[in-house]
Amino acid sequence: MKTLIKNAVLLDMVGNAPNVRKTDLLIDENRISKIEENIEDEEAQIIDAKEYVVMPGLVNTHTHLAMSIFRGYKDDQKLMDWLENAIFPVEDKLRPDDIYWNSFLSCIELIKTGTTTFNDMYFRMDKTIEAVEESGLRGVIAWSITDTSIRDKIERTREYHKKYNNEDSKIKIYVSAHAPYSCNPDTIKLCVDLAKELNTGLHIHLSETLQEEKIIRERYNKTGTEYLNDLHAFDVPVVLAHGIYISDSDLEILKNIKGGISHNPISNCKLSSGICDVVKLRKNGINIGLGTDGIGSTTTLDMFEEMKTAAYLQKINTMEPTSINAYEILKMATIEGARVLGLDNDIGTIEVGKKADLIFINTDKTHLYPENDLCTNLVYSANGADVDTVMIDGKLIMRNRKLININEKQVKKNIAKVVKRLL
Amino acid sequence: MKTLIKNAVLLDMVGNAPNVRKTDLLIDENRISKIEENIEDEEAQIIDAKEYVVMPGLVNTHTHLAMSIFRGYKDDQKLMDWLENAIFPVEDKLRPDDIYWNSFLSCIELIKTGTTTFNDMYFRMDKTIEAVEESGLRGVIAWSITDTSIRDKIERTREYHKKYNNEDSKIKIYVSAHAPYSCNPDTIKLCVDLAKELNTGLHIHLSETLQEEKIIRERYNKTGTEYLNDLHAFDVPVVLAHGIYISDSDLEILKNIKGGISHNPISNCKLSSGICDVVKLRKNGINIGLGTDGIGSTTTLDMFEEMKTAAYLQKINTMEPTSINAYEILKMATIEGARVLGLDNDIGTIEVGKKADLIFINTDKTHLYPENDLCTNLVYSANGADVDTVMIDGKLIMRNRKLININEKQVKKNIAKVVKRLL
Repeated sequence: MKTLIKNAVLLDMVGNAPNVRKTDLLIDENRISKIEENIEDEEAQIIDAKEYVVMPGLVNTHTHLAMSIFRGYKDDQKLMDWLENAIFPVEDKLRPDDIYWNSFLSCIELIKTGTTTFNDMYFRMDKTIEAVEESGLRGVIAWSITDTSIRDKIERTREYHKKYNNEDSKIKIYVSAHAPYSCNPDTIKLCVDLAKELNTGLHIHLSETLQEEKIIRERYNKTGTEYLNDLHAFDVPVVLAHGIYISDSDLEILKNIKGGISHNPISNCKLSSGICDVVKLRKNGINIGLGTDGIGSTTTLDMFEEMKTAAYLQKINTMEPTSINAYEILKMATIEGARVLGLDNDIGTIEVGKKADLIFINTDKTHLYPENDLCTNLVYSANGADVDTVMIDGKLIMRNRKLININEKQVKKNIAKVVKRLL
Repeated sequence: MKTLIKNAVLLDMVGNAPNVRKTDLLIDENRISKIEENIEDEEAQIIDAKEYVVMPGLVNTHTHLAMSIFRGYKDDQKLMDWLENAIFPVEDKLRPDDIYWNSFLSCIELIKTGTTTFNDMYFRMDKTIEAVEESGLRGVIAWSITDTSIRDKIERTREYHKKYNNEDSKIKIYVSAHAPYSCNPDTIKLCVDLAKELNTGLHIHLSETLQEEKIIRERYNKTGTEYLNDLHAFDVPVVLAHGIYISDSDLEILKNIKGGISHNPISNCKLSSGICDVVKLRKNGINIGLGTDGIGSTTTLDMFEEMKTAAYLQKINTMEPTSINAYEILKMATIEGARVLGLDNDIGTIEVGKKADLIFINTDKTHLYPENDLCTNLVYSANGADVDTVMIDGKLIMRNRKLININEKQVKKNIAKVVKRLL
């Protein structure tokens, strides 16, 4: 199947400065086969993109899809109070079907706000994978392993990795150790060995709070980064979620990792975790992607909001407005995020040969006018509601804000039942 | 004329905790005359609000409407570089008609994102007032006075104050001294005396940057707040824009002011100005409203974005997630903002006798579901695009996102001409 996108205003996210141009794009099956003006192709279905900016789908490098029912649930609390009194007791009661519907609601929100690829870890994933497959999203999935109930999760990781280990799969299986403070050295080693065996990556929380760094220091007299390094965790590609309290010697270690750090600015603010020094980390050549974390802590999965907040925090953290610009923020939300997930050969920019994960932005809006600078408008004024059309892997998932083949009402109806039973 | 709003989910913003209830509202001319269930009125035009949350229109306590053409213009720069190289040279060339169209575009954006009242200062206002009147917005308007060209602005302030000085006017004229660093003691005194003469308030920038506090210290050996206090500026109601570098002794002075501080979190981040200690100021009984500043520095006039960012910054500044909650943020964006502008007897809450400035939020959206907590969803996940209907002074200005009696295309066409000529 071919799709011909006519008259797009293309923001390809290739290169170190924005390249915005009018062009056509030809999609052949799931890949971009041609980018030039005036393409003709009689077999292709045609989409007129005349009023739209076409850019790569956004990449959310850290989330927990199954937590959607916790949107706004007992919010504005301290992390540990919230987890222990609000979240954990409910999570214990989640049934497999709940995980399915909760994940599906998150998938819909991701699509409607322009995210085409996500990276998820949670303690149950089978049903999340079902929802993700039905939604059409691309995702990296991992069973979050702690010191308890390791066996089952390792088995599942292996089983699902086998199932999805092929080039054209939209799902990629990662191994996840939950965090240095919740995984002892044996658990970390098991996870790293599994990632090596499967030739895949490791998704782990790192240095989200000062408190957890203190715990690691007391237990091992090391930083979280040193702890992981000494257990050879960085032999495999990693996604390190948060990375807020990184020392200069940690930085030396992290300079050489494959993968990168997922920066979650909204969650880090809402939970008063701290500010990740993105500017410094990027200067040291470390890949930084953006993530939303779960809905429970951020309340939204809209990556446009993460882009805004990421920029605001860096400018306030450095007290230097030139420290990061709109295009760099867009890169973090696309190609750099893809690089963090090891997917940059396939997605993150719009280039011939890459997979067709595209979003169409309707810029015919008051808040995006005048357009003195497209990237600035996209980062500082656009939001998820401006995403008009979404294509993932060459397939239209949303067109003119209408979801294709997704029954949102049914999802909401089932969410209502879960909420009624559990919250 | 009467309007009967049926079946609203009312968030009235009265009291210290959210009060959400199903009710009808009767509007008689420009005021709310009844709030109860099952109102019947044969004369009234009926609006069914069944799917909507009805809340007070948002109050933007500091902006510069005429700066809309600068959206994204030479952004991500240092403040002084940006002002001197990008903004000032263009401002010098602005014609009266440009001010009209630029202001009108801002008015449209305010309406579409749920703001019904704003507080503006700029060096020319006559044409802004024309645009504001045509748009239907409520606003506080002031000619920004510096040490140069004082006479004309004082005359205009006096003339327009006379014209709009009546209870039912939607426009209120304030006096504006630009800032302590740009107004010498004589200028400040002139402005304060004028405000006293007209029995109105003073709108002034205060303590936006550390740099300006240093300037005031060098010139007068005082803080900005002390400088104003010694010139008796706080004898009149004030709107102090920014208020970032406030010392403990400043706080003692500010505790007793009428009016309050306009907190502009996005502008303060984007320009690396610093974080206003809203939590501390509010604890000391100082009214804090939210503002967007001009589009040039924030890129958006969406007050929902200011609400999010205000919450994020306080939680990160205090490192305490309980330091401020969603309902307090909503209060700052409504009734506290109204109090800062001295309009709290008329607007800011939904109560019988108050003017009917209402916004209808469409909560039937993926990103607002489930609704475990309405206020949390409104602050942390809603955005301006969720505002469906806007009523100001009892009159519908937008219905189902369609502007009534405003020709947006014409405004954009004229903005295009201004941009082409000047940028």
